[in-house]
Parts: sequence; C-alpha cells; structure tokens
Amino acid sequence: MDTQSSPLLTDLYQLAMAQAYLDNGENKTAVFELFVRRLPARRGFLMAAGLEQALDFLENLRFSPADIEWLATSRRCNAGLLRHLERLRFTGDVHAMPEGSVFFDNEPILRITAPLIEAQLVETRLMNLIHYQVLVASKAARAVLAAAGKRLVDFGLRRAHGAEAGLMAARASYIAGFAGTATVLAEQEFGIPSFGTMAHSFVQIHDDESTAFERFARSRPNELTLLIDTYDTEAATRKVVALARKLAADGIKVGAVRIDSGNLIMLSRTVRRILDEGGCKDVRIFVSGGLDEDDVMAILHAGAPIDGFGLGTSLTTSSDVPALDCVYKLEEYDGVARRKRSVGKETWPGRKQVWRRHGADGRMKADILTVETDIQEGEPLLHPVMQGGRRLRPHPTLTEIRARAARDLAALPEPLRHLEAGTFYTITVAPALTKLASNVDQRLAAHDRPQQP
Amino acid sequence: MDTQSSPLLTDLYQLAMAQAYLDNGENKTAVFELFVRRLPARRGFLMAAGLEQALDFLENLRFSPADIEWLATSRRCNAGLLRHLERLRFTGDVHAMPEGSVFFDNEPILRITAPLIEAQLVETRLMNLIHYQVLVASKAARAVLAAAGKRLVDFGLRRAHGAEAGLMAARASYIAGFAGTATVLAEQEFGIPSFGTMAHSFVQIHDDESTAFERFARSRPNELTLLIDTYDTEAATRKVVALARKLAADGIKVGAVRIDSGNLIMLSRTVRRILDEGGCKDVRIFVSGGLDEDDVMAILHAGAPIDGFGLGTSLTTSSDVPALDCVYKLEEYDGVARRKRSVGKETWPGRKQVWRRHGADGRMKADILTVETDIQEGEPLLHPVMQGGRRLRPHPTLTEIRARAARDLAALPEPLRHLEAGTFYTITVAPALTKLASNVDQRLAAHDRPQQP
Repeated sequence: MDTQSSPLLTDLYQLAMAQAYLDNGENKTAVFELFVRRLPARRGFLMAAGLEQALDFLENLRFSPADIEWLATSRRCNAGLLRHLERLRFTGDVHAMPEGSVFFDNEPILRITAPLIEAQLVETRLMNLIHYQVLVASKAARAVLAAAGKRLVDFGLRRAHGAEAGLMAARASYIAGFAGTATVLAEQEFGIPSFGTMAHSFVQIHDDESTAFERFARSRPNELTLLIDTYDTEAATRKVVALARKLAADGIKVGAVRIDSGNLIMLSRTVRRILDEGGCKDVRIFVSGGLDEDDVMAILHAGAPIDGFGLGTSLTTSSDVPALDCVYKLEEYDGVARRKRSVGKETWPGRKQVWRRHGADGRMKADILTVETDIQEGEPLLHPVMQGGRRLRPHPTLTEIRARAARDLAALPEPLRHLEAGTFYTITVAPALTKLASNVDQRLAAHDRPQQP
Repeated sequence: MDTQSSPLLTDLYQLAMAQAYLDNGENKTAVFELFVRRLPARRGFLMAAGLEQALDFLENLRFSPADIEWLATSRRCNAGLLRHLERLRFTGDVHAMPEGSVFFDNEPILRITAPLIEAQLVETRLMNLIHYQVLVASKAARAVLAAAGKRLVDFGLRRAHGAEAGLMAARASYIAGFAGTATVLAEQEFGIPSFGTMAHSFVQIHDDESTAFERFARSRPNELTLLIDTYDTEAATRKVVALARKLAADGIKVGAVRIDSGNLIMLSRTVRRILDEGGCKDVRIFVSGGLDEDDVMAILHAGAPIDGFGLGTSLTTSSDVPALDCVYKLEEYDGVARRKRSVGKETWPGRKQVWRRHGADGRMKADILTVETDIQEGEPLLHPVMQGGRRLRPHPTLTEIRARAARDLAALPEPLRHLEAGTFYTITVAPALTKLASNVDQRLAAHDRPQQP
C-alpha cells in the first residue's frame, strides 16, 4: 500500500466535518494558515521546508475507487459525501514562504484559500508533511552554524521515525546546508549526494583488522573512509598508515578515517598525530556516534582536528525538540475574519503577510506581521505558489532552495547565530492586524450575548 | 514513488560493504541481533512491536530493474554486484520475541541468520521499522498503566514524523492497549477502531456555537462528541445541555464533550456539574491538548471526572524519549562468535536466548540472558518466525498481539508499573555467555598480538 499518498491518511474528524458541511451546503471559501505558535526554548529561529511535498500532495489529492468503496462499507459517509469525495480535487490557492526561509513564531509559512471542505480535509497531512521538514531543517541549521564550514552528513535513517521521516530528513538537512546523507534513496529521489563508509561488522567479519581495511580499500578505492574504532583506535590508525603506503603503490588513496566512539577530542588529536607522523597529512578525520550540534560546537571550540561530522539520531528525530507547536488555523470564512479564543491558544485572524526589514549591514532587523492588504516597508515573505490547484511555477531546484537558506542564515542577527540564543528577534504586530482582531472579538461578543446568563 | 518498500531506503555503506564482500567471496552465514543497549532514564521496560512490518519487508525485498539501472548509472556498484542484487532475495531465518512482549536492555528482540550480504543489507530498514514501533508501544504502555482503564485514543498523526510514523504509531499504541486512533488509514489498513470529534474551525465557521453543535449532531448522530472550548467552555456546556434536550426528542444522544485547553481538572469538574444538573449524566467528558502520560496520571490522581484522553504529539513523537539506543549487531560469522569492543559499546557475542521466570504471584521475577543452546528454567522469549525467507506461521491478529501485551503489562513487577520506576528489573547474564565473551576476547587478542608495538 502506498501510505504516503492516501487521502485517508487523515483524522476521522475531517470526514465528520465534511459530512456536516455538505449536509448544510456550507462550502464557501475558507482561509487557513499554518504557523508555529511558540518557539521552543532552544530555537531562536525556524527554517521553512517541505513545501514541495505539500504541493505534490495537494496536486495529487484524490480518493480512489477502493477508498470510496471502503468508506461506503465503513458507513462513515452518506451517499452524497461519497459522491462528493469521488470527484474531489484540490482547487484552491496557496501562498507560502519559499523553502529555506528563516521564520519565527506566529508567522504563517503557508496559507490555503479554498472551498471549505477541501481546505479542511487537507489539514492533517499538510501539517504532517511540513511540520517534520521544518523541524529537521531548523535543527540542521543549528548544526550548520555550529560547524562553521566543516562537512556535515546525515547518518540518521535507522532511528528516524519511519521511511518518510528518514528520506525527508535527508532533504531538510541538505536544504539547511548539510553536504549530504548516508541515505541512498535520497540520492535517487532528490539528487542529494550520498556518503558512506563501513560498519563495525565489516571489521568484525575479518579476524584481522588490516585485512578488513585492505579488502574494503581495494573494492571501494574512491572516497575511501576507514572505520578505526572497532577494537583499539590508536592501533587501527597505525594499521591505516601502513596500509596507506601499500595502497599508494597501486594508486589508491585513503581519503579519511572515521571514529565512532570514545573521547573524540582526545582521540582525534592522537589519530591526527599518528597520521601526520606516518605521512598521511591528507587523510581527513571524520567523527560520528550520537553527536548533536552542541557536541559539534564543543569539539570545534576545543580545537580538535576534525574535518567532518556524521549526525544521526539527534538530527532525524530533532531529539531535544521532537515536535513544534505547529498549527493550521481558520483565519477567514466567507469573507469574514475568524479567530480562535481558547485559553492560551488565541490566534491572529485574517489573511496575513510578513514583512522583513534588513539593516544597513544586510542582517535581519525586524519582522512585521500584518493583514495581507497592509503594505509595509521591507520584503514580503509570503508569495503565491499555487492557483486553482495548479503550481504557478516549476519546482525550484534544491540548489536554489539551499541558496535561499544560506542567504537567510548569513543574514541572521548575531545573537541568533549562537546555539543558546538568549535574545529574541523583534516581531511587530501592525495596528491593522490588532484592529482586525478586536473587530472579530466584538462581532463574536455580539453573537454570544443572547446566550450569556 | 513507494518509498517504504524501496531497497534503496538504506545507508550507502551497506552497498559499499556488499561490494567488498562479493569481491572477496565473503558471504557465509552471519548472525545479527537487534536490541536496545540501555534503557532511557524514564523507561523501566520496553515493549516489542513492528515485527510484522519487518517480516513483510524481508519477504518482499527486491531490487527493481529501475533500481538496478539507477545503481549502474551511479557507478557505485560493479557489474558483479549489480547481477547479485538483481537476483537478491532474503533467504534467511528470523527469530523474534512476539509483538507485545515486555523486554529490557541488552535482550535481543530479533535475530537474523542469513548469508552475510543479505543480513547486512537489511540492517538499516529493519532498525528503522522496529525502533519506531518499539518506541511508541513503550511510550503508549506507560499511558495505559497511568490511565487505569480509562479510554485512550491516538490523536498524533499531524505532528508524527511523516506518513509511516503516523500510521505505525496508531498500530503500536493499539498494541499497547489504546482503544483506537483518529487516523482513518489505520482503520482501513489494520482494522484499528477510529475515533473522531470536531475541530475548533467547525465552531468558528458558524457565528453561533449552538448552531454549529446542532448541525454537527444531526449529520453525525452516532458516537457524537462536541468540542466545547472554542470560546467559553462553561457557556458551551450549557448550550450542550439545551441541545441535548432538543436532540433527545429526535432520538439523538450526545455521547461526549471534549475539552482541548485550559485547566482540565477544574474545567472537567465544572462541566460535569453543569451536565449532571442539566440531566446529562450519561454524557462523558473527553480531554485532549498536548497531554502525556504524566498528565493522565496527575489528572486521575486529582480525581477529575474525566472518561477518556486523546494523546497526540507526546505519543507519536515519544516526546520525552524520541529515540532508543537500539542497535543491530554482528554476533556470529561463519560459525564463530563475534563481539564489538568499542569503548562503551561492547556487545555480548553469539546467538542468544532470553529466559523469563515468573514468581508464584504470576509477576515477572527475573530474566536470564544466555547463549541459545544453554537451556534454563522459565519461558524462552525468542521463537523462530521465518525460515529460508518465508514466514513459519500466519500473521497473528492485532487482537492476539494486544492480548500478549496486556498479559505482559499485568505481569510487570509492581515498581515497574509506576511512571517513575526508580527500581530496575533483574537481568542475569548466564555463565555460558560470559564464558563465550571471554573466549572471543582471547581469540581477538591472539590475532592482534603481531600488530602491537
């Protein structure tokens, strides 16, 4: 079964609401926006990602005959709704921030304008798609800042939460500035460079570590990386030095060694010294093993001679912050602005735009959140990307998306470039938006009055 | 593209190693075991899950002509390896703990016995599949213990890490004892009961909350749940009471109300009182909104009149522990036991079995970890489930798997039934296994001697 494109990958309440809307002929234009309500304590900014997969989902949304048949037997939809779903396509408009954009709390990164039933039905999967890539791109961006130009590679497929997470983590981290991934499918699917070394089991299969290294080298002479911590890292490094001489005679070059355990700062110094003394000055040192961006920062701060890092589980599960307070909220229906007022979960109503101002130094200075029609100084961040259910332009390439991410990371205010931000970015809510919110509240109060005791 | 069944959903090093093994004719029988090295601080036990998906993956493993063609153009494999992969099927044996089994650190839950290249190639996806379901089943089991019989429903698709995570979280939490899920696809795919209410947007669409409630009720008269916290929870409860009388005349029953924000303990008491005074004693109170098992425990401990809980993000991301220290390690090759000795990552060698002893009260008393051939008292937990690449028995039903989980949860020692375990379960390593480990070390030392300075 192709789970990923099933329209039934949704919450049951979406179908229940569709039934009630259809029964009442309630299907006028609705506007929903997707945003993150609050930044987690250890995120000074977030990075937009996942838009292309979201647009693919919208363009291809349809209920198959088998889906309709199953829904009929499940008796969850009446005949009218089944007919409606059978013909249902996404016919709406989408506005979005480009992937790779830096964004902040309460800033919409996606807006859906569509007939109510469509706009509501797509909620669950849109959030599921975008939330995860934003989560990983934002985590990866921190590692990119910490690594200060050293190579970063995604190693996290095995402990990512399922197939799609593993694949999309490779994409999201590549957007943020990773050099590539160990996940082969990400190269096949997205052209993301894939990197690979060897596992401890390869060394263990052979009783003799030197034999393991030499066999691997001769089978995989390009981009050759040898894993040196299966038994004794220092001893293994000396074996690499001896082997490098032997292989050089055959034109094979040892590219790097990988250390996957132990005190990486101390070990990398010892390994560097043994390599250098053995004439292997060109052999790079790559490290891995439960690392996150704080480790990268600490290792480089200590001046360890490390050239690259494999980040795995911490990246693909965004382990310190495994979810964001990401929501998809109704902002307008039938031309009237709406807002949720649940305690602690109030939202800004209406169709919104975010304007970003940069300082003379090119760094981001402030964002203004306002209603769509309220033109402000600066750069508007939301752009139309889909109209009437069709993309307005061809897919941007990952290279273009990476360039956007790099541009935005370079423009981050200095305090936000550190892993512990401590300070926050200025987001101003424009008067036009506060006025709209107060109008909505007055309207709701007027409607509620008759029911109050 | 069907991501989930692609054999390229793997780490590049698996292909690099396959190339080296094939070049050297190194493809004898290998034994790998999958286990969790250390329990996280807040997990006194784990629950096995994901085996059926792992077996499906092994039974269906194949490289398509398109995969082979892509690998050829990527120049990562020579012609010999391409031919080998084209014909590759999983032909090995699998031993495993039944899904729903409670297990502990260092206890293998899956053993693969297969020609080396096959056994190694499947590592990444096997871990990816099993790790996530174990993670969620283990988290869900805590909620089941905390809920003490109250209804639990998975609400977490939207912030799960992608499609597969959302679907498999529904399965894993159902195994652990949840009543069901909001994810429709989980009902279509696995027959898991799905539950659904309404979103805040449904109320917001209507200017009048009472109208919203009545329209929803008339469209969805069965299992009717009304969401009462969009504006003012108390006022909404009074509207429910008034509506319930009106609907009763038409034979429609309000099943439950849902509160999704605010102080749930205080609100539920007020709501209960208003409902009871209004003659709605049968209307249940269901709560949701960023809850985890600690909240469930605290809410029930306070005696709040709550009948059920929707758990979302905390469940599907296992938010306090988003990954386990789960590994897949070589234990034997060509009849010789192997072991990894990397600092802090040492493993027990050889094919292993776990024996569980129960006390006179039926509670688990102690586990013994030993070599497969060392018969002990108690119940052996690993059983053959696949031979020569084929399942040995039909798929167990989810009902059977749930019964196993319920049996094991009921047999947990008292201290492990609390969310803060504080005490640990006794796992004994049998002399036969420590002896094997020391033999392996001696053999490796003998091989290493010539290389030592």
